[in-house]
Amino acid sequence: MPKRKIVVVITARPSYSRVKTVLSAIQRHPDLELQLVVAASALLDRYGSAVNYIEKDGFTIAAKVFNVLEGENLTAAAKTTGIGILELSTVFDNLKPDIVVTVADRFETMATAIAASYMNIPLAHIQGGEVTGNIDEKVRHAITKLADYHFVASENAKERVIKLGEDPEMVFNTGCPSIDLADEVVLSEMLPFDPYEKYGGVGAKPDLADGYLVVMQHPVTTEYLDSRKHIEATLEAIHKLNKPTLWFWPNVDAGADGTSTGIRAFREQHQLPNVHFFKNMEGKDFLQLLYHSDCLIGNSSVGIRECAFLGVPVVNIGSRQNRRDRGGNSADVDYCQNSIEEAILDSVQRGKSISSSIYGDGKAGTQIAELLLHLPLQFHKTIMY
Amino acid sequence: MPKRKIVVVITARPSYSRVKTVLSAIQRHPDLELQLVVAASALLDRYGSAVNYIEKDGFTIAAKVFNVLEGENLTAAAKTTGIGILELSTVFDNLKPDIVVTVADRFETMATAIAASYMNIPLAHIQGGEVTGNIDEKVRHAITKLADYHFVASENAKERVIKLGEDPEMVFNTGCPSIDLADEVVLSEMLPFDPYEKYGGVGAKPDLADGYLVVMQHPVTTEYLDSRKHIEATLEAIHKLNKPTLWFWPNVDAGADGTSTGIRAFREQHQLPNVHFFKNMEGKDFLQLLYHSDCLIGNSSVGIRECAFLGVPVVNIGSRQNRRDRGGNSADVDYCQNSIEEAILDSVQRGKSISSSIYGDGKAGTQIAELLLHLPLQFHKTIMY
Amino acid sequence: MPKRKIVVVITARPSYSRVKTVLSAIQRHPDLELQLVVAASALLDRYGSAVNYIEKDGFTIAAKVFNVLEGENLTAAAKTTGIGILELSTVFDNLKPDIVVTVADRFETMATAIAASYMNIPLAHIQGGEVTGNIDEKVRHAITKLADYHFVASENAKERVIKLGEDPEMVFNTGCPSIDLADEVVLSEMLPFDPYEKYGGVGAKPDLADGYLVVMQHPVTTEYLDSRKHIEATLEAIHKLNKPTLWFWPNVDAGADGTSTGIRAFREQHQLPNVHFFKNMEGKDFLQLLYHSDCLIGNSSVGIRECAFLGVPVVNIGSRQNRRDRGGNSADVDYCQNSIEEAILDSVQRGKSISSSIYGDGKAGTQIAELLLHLPLQFHKTIMY
Amino acid sequence: MPKRKIVVVITARPSYSRVKTVLSAIQRHPDLELQLVVAASALLDRYGSAVNYIEKDGFTIAAKVFNVLEGENLTAAAKTTGIGILELSTVFDNLKPDIVVTVADRFETMATAIAASYMNIPLAHIQGGEVTGNIDEKVRHAITKLADYHFVASENAKERVIKLGEDPEMVFNTGCPSIDLADEVVLSEMLPFDPYEKYGGVGAKPDLADGYLVVMQHPVTTEYLDSRKHIEATLEAIHKLNKPTLWFWPNVDAGADGTSTGIRAFREQHQLPNVHFFKNMEGKDFLQLLYHSDCLIGNSSVGIRECAFLGVPVVNIGSRQNRRDRGGNSADVDYCQNSIEEAILDSVQRGKSISSSIYGDGKAGTQIAELLLHLPLQFHKTIMY
Repeated sequence: MPKRKIVVVITARPSYSRVKTVLSAIQRHPDLELQLVVAASALLDRYGSAVNYIEKDGFTIAAKVFNVLEGENLTAAAKTTGIGILELSTVFDNLKPDIVVTVADRFETMATAIAASYMNIPLAHIQGGEVTGNIDEKVRHAITKLADYHFVASENAKERVIKLGEDPEMVFNTGCPSIDLADEVVLSEMLPFDPYEKYGGVGAKPDLADGYLVVMQHPVTTEYLDSRKHIEATLEAIHKLNKPTLWFWPNVDAGADGTSTGIRAFREQHQLPNVHFFKNMEGKDFLQLLYHSDCLIGNSSVGIRECAFLGVPVVNIGSRQNRRDRGGNSADVDYCQNSIEEAILDSVQRGKSISSSIYGDGKAGTQIAELLLHLPLQFHKTIMY
Repeated sequence: MPKRKIVVVITARPSYSRVKTVLSAIQRHPDLELQLVVAASALLDRYGSAVNYIEKDGFTIAAKVFNVLEGENLTAAAKTTGIGILELSTVFDNLKPDIVVTVADRFETMATAIAASYMNIPLAHIQGGEVTGNIDEKVRHAITKLADYHFVASENAKERVIKLGEDPEMVFNTGCPSIDLADEVVLSEMLPFDPYEKYGGVGAKPDLADGYLVVMQHPVTTEYLDSRKHIEATLEAIHKLNKPTLWFWPNVDAGADGTSTGIRAFREQHQLPNVHFFKNMEGKDFLQLLYHSDCLIGNSSVGIRECAFLGVPVVNIGSRQNRRDRGGNSADVDYCQNSIEEAILDSVQRGKSISSSIYGDGKAGTQIAELLLHLPLQFHKTIMY
Repeated sequence: MPKRKIVVVITARPSYSRVKTVLSAIQRHPDLELQLVVAASALLDRYGSAVNYIEKDGFTIAAKVFNVLEGENLTAAAKTTGIGILELSTVFDNLKPDIVVTVADRFETMATAIAASYMNIPLAHIQGGEVTGNIDEKVRHAITKLADYHFVASENAKERVIKLGEDPEMVFNTGCPSIDLADEVVLSEMLPFDPYEKYGGVGAKPDLADGYLVVMQHPVTTEYLDSRKHIEATLEAIHKLNKPTLWFWPNVDAGADGTSTGIRAFREQHQLPNVHFFKNMEGKDFLQLLYHSDCLIGNSSVGIRECAFLGVPVVNIGSRQNRRDRGGNSADVDYCQNSIEEAILDSVQRGKSISSSIYGDGKAGTQIAELLLHLPLQFHKTIMY
Repeated sequence: MPKRKIVVVITARPSYSRVKTVLSAIQRHPDLELQLVVAASALLDRYGSAVNYIEKDGFTIAAKVFNVLEGENLTAAAKTTGIGILELSTVFDNLKPDIVVTVADRFETMATAIAASYMNIPLAHIQGGEVTGNIDEKVRHAITKLADYHFVASENAKERVIKLGEDPEMVFNTGCPSIDLADEVVLSEMLPFDPYEKYGGVGAKPDLADGYLVVMQHPVTTEYLDSRKHIEATLEAIHKLNKPTLWFWPNVDAGADGTSTGIRAFREQHQLPNVHFFKNMEGKDFLQLLYHSDCLIGNSSVGIRECAFLGVPVVNIGSRQNRRDRGGNSADVDYCQNSIEEAILDSVQRGKSISSSIYGDGKAGTQIAELLLHLPLQFHKTIMY
């Protein structure tokens, strides 16, 4: 029997981190062939060149597709998706995969979903069924309606996908594969690398020995015009607290320039002697960094998922993770300097929580690979009600 | 107060017929401005040049977008959608509409839905919530998850859209606007035009005075390779019955060539002295033609909807209309010459049914225009469970 | 030393026939690696599915790109080219060729030329420097200005490319590779296959034993609206002469539908009992067919090139081959039924001319392969005056 | 007689400055209608948002097209061009212009040229026939072969276009329209605005009262990998000289990131207390700034053209302007810190030259508008030899 050919399309750095253990599990499985496609911001320097990590991690890339359209408005997001469909169709037509896998809910993942489903290639969706209350939600649930198999990350998500009319036999709570990586980290006793040396970056180099904060805050698409104001509240709070802080640049989104501009302007004006800026970091190193930090601040889903498993305190700002299931590690605040400051101080004082497996137990990668091998190949479905 | 600007994107001949009364109602409304975009197969001669009828009907076209990629496989459908997104984004960016309206579930309507929703333009979807059991269903329900307002055609459809997690206050059973047209037709006592003279076409010109059949059968996308076999069963049945028959060419789909080739080859081989072929017909004339026919054969949704209202007998072939709500006028058969023949004979003998308002009462157009004027402009939603 | 990787992009059936011996020579060369890309109308059934012949001839295809946009106007030709650039860039980015080869002057070959030259990949152009007096000429000479190496087909062409400011050391009169194929045909004593049996087609099956005509007439892009009238003059002439005739469908162009519609309508109206229609034919069989015919009628460049070498009489209609160098075998006429009739009768009576090597001596394929191996890899040039 | 509709496509800030007087002359002409299309980097903040100046200058924009594909390599330039063709075709199809005008030789202007020429719309090219010795040259001369009318900027350029086989009756030496703007500047006695106040920017604010330098250096596409090294030579020289300096960011090109990164890194490391950085400036203000400066350093064509007319000394670095005609105002140097330093010192000491009209006498705009009105509408041409 020939191997099943599995296309996975990676379009962004965080998606790569999230499914890295899935890729490994497919690649080492004797009955599966991984056809890795790297596209969109995963290829771009401005967003951390995930492609370099992918290659360094030993994955062979079957095709690269540059499809990010540049622009300061939402039009660019739509056009990026259109170009993605146009080109991924050609890629799929040439690779002839048995199954295509798409990850999560970034706008451009829709391109993968449409190309595969329109071409009658069975489509697997990782991380459907979650609720966040922003544009990602339209994308996420629409992809659920296009997908044939659903690998979800929590029981709530599973229930929601089934309510959306999907066949319960095709919905699997595998947990989130990002937890697989977190699972490898929890035993380390101290940060096993020097982040300044290994990852460069710009700004001050505060001493990390007595604890540090991590910030990662992305623009929220539907509140485009406010993204600069939002980031400034966080910047003021961090500036005021004056603790050692490691700050990660946001990934690509329609509002990226508002956020980035806000950060740049603030840096020009203030000295920020306690803050160092990174563009990106390998997934495992990033988890190590979080595991040994005092608190994560921002709106990254890593705070809700991996940090719940790691027990790291999180100050979750604004609406981006709205209604996502929470472990006991996080505090939600608005875009308000005072609230952010207080929540950080509380979190640091409280310290680590106990580990929660609400988003998985660390075995998602192998479980998904097995499902990809054994699920019936089908692309014809009907709503269950 | 400036007029609300409403973009409606028409991508195919049948979609135009379906929403013509909506377009009229928007155009004549003093507080609405219609921005009509004509795209995809609606511009192509091979598929009946809907654009010519649109212009003849007095609508002003704001933009035309050629985006049908040619090909014999499903890849072309995906790529057509990608190009559609790319170009419609530019069109929307230049027209700056308050609301975008997309119609039904043809694959390329997804382009309209994605461009609008990604650009934070409120999206209205006409005819969601139905069930047919084919690729259209993935498209239809995915568009529901992208849309902000839902104008559905039946109570069952309304219930289903709400089950999909949509806000019940944004789901409206307006009935299908195509019924508005049917409503204008039911009083005519005889066919008020000579179809041969008015629409040309090719083939024999059988006498229609003592009754006639109408055939309209589209390829079914997910059964691409079978489309030629499917059409041949119908061709054999019609050939055998030897009744006056008016046959309409199928619209564009991945399998179009299978169906078209089947028809052409059959014509070369047999004389078909009872069959005349049309490429297309204006919506109202087509309804007149149906209203005075003995039976409609094929898999067009017009058999399920308009013919239910008109009470015209329908022989519905194959899976394309699976699980769509039925009035009492239709008989479902498989792709089998004998079953088709028998069902036609039965239907002709049985004659007209009573009119059913299961798909609307003839007031959808004005109702939708009013909703477009008064609905709150919003593009931010979250699933209801 | 690693092999030089040579991308050749084939976008249409006639281009494939033209460079088939180049492909073979590259493929069998121990120091070259052929990366064959098949795109545009070469993939489409409507235009003869060159891809099937390519595969049957034993070539491995590195990538297929569907990029023909459907439409009844010239807009589609422009858009097809745009999509071609977009997708071929990705293909080249993934294949990483040392040299890209583009063939002749069809509108969509510009896509290959732009993608390669913009990406700093050395570009070789086969068949520049010719003059025809239509839109192809804009394309052809623009490609010359983008190309780094020029493999031309005649001394006049060479001189013209040099006049265009190209470095004479990069301009090579290799002759036209299509002549290589013609060279293999000239010794056959009779048509070695039954065209009806081998190629199907539609229409009458006239007896070919006592001679026959061949017709191949393409629409002329800049005279779009006239293409139907043009083809009717030829149809009338052929109908009147009533000799056994084998007619080939035109390839894709903006006016294709005018020409095709003209042929279909004429067939509906008249019986054409002397004419058989083919969609396409393998290059070598086609040359055999020409070699044993009485006369080729139409505007194909095969009449000017291969037929000059074969000595077959040609009636060349209209402006499409204007100013191309002629051997002694052809007569030029206008789109006029009478002139066409007379020219055919004259040509048939006159019979075969002596072979002309004005377009090559049959060694172009190997010569081009050697040049591709030994030419310096360069993409930086400046005009010579 | 209806007005002639003239589409001009502006794709970059420098192109806008160059043809601004042409746009004005068309707009105020009673028999012409300007249809202005703004696309590519002219819409992007990163490249100076030319669109804002265009709107402020009172031009009405008929359509905007976002088509810059983001990427760190040359693939992005090719893809940007492909998307441009795809979308501009739709724009032209909807605007139905009588003539399309394309400007100069940036890679993406090819999109305008191909869309127009493929659609049989007469194409006018401003600034063909020049020689620079880089990738722009391939683009420039290829556009000449696609264009129907040529409005060139010098006698040498005219001669070269004619040598390229163009009809001499369609080649007009109008001079460069950028000189029209320069002509309005030459009488001012001092810089009439405070550049820091009016244009913001970042960095030091050196006193300009006793003279200042201006730097504008773009990456050179075919030397992509060297662009960082190139810019560093200039940075070192300027740093060493320590004179008041106003530096303009480069425009978009495949190597843009090399140049920009080089500048950013140098600023991080050194303080550059004598340098202020601007993103962009309105054309006329920029010319004022140049007119009152001691010397322009870099590789902008403004040094060769406008500065020749203004008599401002120019240190022209590297190959970008190779073989462009020179007035007596410029000195050419290599990418070498010492040479750059010396040439600057010499230039400053030498002072202003006399004005040269080698690139025009200041009347190009009106002359071109008149030609656009009176030239025969034609798109059919043949090479003249």
